[in-house]
Amino acid sequence: MAIEELTIEGRNAVIEALRSGKPIDKLYVQDGCQDGPVMTIKREAKKNNIMIKFVDKERLDQLSKTGKHQGVIAMGAAYEYAEVEDILNAAKEKGEPPFVILLDNIEDPHNLGAIIRTANLAGAHGVIIPKNRAVGLTATVARTSAGALNYTPVAKVTNIAKTIEDLKKEGLWFVCADMGGTRMYDLDLKGPIGLVIGNEGEGVGRLVKEKCDFVASIPMKGDIDSLNASVAAGVLAYEIVRQRML
Amino acid sequence: MAIEELTIEGRNAVIEALRSGKPIDKLYVQDGCQDGPVMTIKREAKKNNIMIKFVDKERLDQLSKTGKHQGVIAMGAAYEYAEVEDILNAAKEKGEPPFVILLDNIEDPHNLGAIIRTANLAGAHGVIIPKNRAVGLTATVARTSAGALNYTPVAKVTNIAKTIEDLKKEGLWFVCADMGGTRMYDLDLKGPIGLVIGNEGEGVGRLVKEKCDFVASIPMKGDIDSLNASVAAGVLAYEIVRQRML
Repeated sequence: MAIEELTIEGRNAVIEALRSGKPIDKLYVQDGCQDGPVMTIKREAKKNNIMIKFVDKERLDQLSKTGKHQGVIAMGAAYEYAEVEDILNAAKEKGEPPFVILLDNIEDPHNLGAIIRTANLAGAHGVIIPKNRAVGLTATVARTSAGALNYTPVAKVTNIAKTIEDLKKEGLWFVCADMGGTRMYDLDLKGPIGLVIGNEGEGVGRLVKEKCDFVASIPMKGDIDSLNASVAAGVLAYEIVRQRML
Repeated sequence: MAIEELTIEGRNAVIEALRSGKPIDKLYVQDGCQDGPVMTIKREAKKNNIMIKFVDKERLDQLSKTGKHQGVIAMGAAYEYAEVEDILNAAKEKGEPPFVILLDNIEDPHNLGAIIRTANLAGAHGVIIPKNRAVGLTATVARTSAGALNYTPVAKVTNIAKTIEDLKKEGLWFVCADMGGTRMYDLDLKGPIGLVIGNEGEGVGRLVKEKCDFVASIPMKGDIDSLNASVAAGVLAYEIVRQRML
């Protein structure tokens, strides 16, 4: 799995990249640009749910590697996503019950990178992220994963709830992290399992939560509401590790 | 514990702040400035182990709130550190064996914030950080702690190894996180405890490690070397929580 930062500069190059479905994470457009090609870029970006950042010319000049950005720079990671099947096969090859981490709209690239790192070390067979809204495999994620992205497959799916349904047919149980559930120590987390971690601010979405078999809660002894998402993922992933080692 | 971002602008104001020991986290100096007052600022900053960032005038203009930065801006958090004694007292008041998290040179403010957040929710009575080299309580740390900084005392000490010695006299045991130690599940972590988490790149320093009673290891089943520091802190803190709940 080669990871390489990808910078696409110039109007035509960016339009082409958008139309061919290249993995673009961020799109920088010069503030105030309103001409035809830029409008096309905005429309295509919207279609693909790509966030546009409007910045001034100085910022674009800084970001530019060619010096010829024409007011638009697209950035992405030249990274290949895995298929959900690859993750199940990885478990099969190791002769282990599948252990998958599903992320319901993690937005912070540092959190995503840290979770992929945790997935690798906790022996999860892969990570599943949704196509829309959430952060994808950017260069920051690759860096924060500390190399784990080279080993742990990450699949991107259209609909997490639908993927959960499909994986249930493969024998997986699903547990999501949320308040007001069963204390994690009191759940049996040893079998084939999908651990679902929610968005930083909103937690796990209602539709996804309804598909889960259990809600696992981390004991909270303090004054504030919730752990950082990557810490919560780590604590739960290692409760699974602990139970599997018993 | 009020937290407020502090911006000090202009040469005299910055020199005065440095000399009076105000908590300055970052110092921005305009690239190329070499005159007397700026040299004094550089010298004072070095004396106080404050990192200097050399930036261009445009960046300073952006950061400036007064528009009168004269080539220097100091940033800090108007935040009060606790004393180590406050942490022990917090444990006493709750009638619990002390549980303290010590950070041996955490450098990333997001990690420090996430660890303070974890400390709060895992029921730790406080966090101890070293004065030099490591990141202090910056505005970013306050933000990343998600409010935990308002509840969980953070003390700053000159020498972590010395603090460990002092706290041993108060009956605490010390366990540091590192590879090649005892599997964390096999240690007794129920008593009065200090959990030591090392630097992101280098782990726990030799001198600090020598002061610890145990080395605790998180099982590593993957291909890479280590967890993110705040995730490792979370996993270990919650192993302490689990054992204390048994």
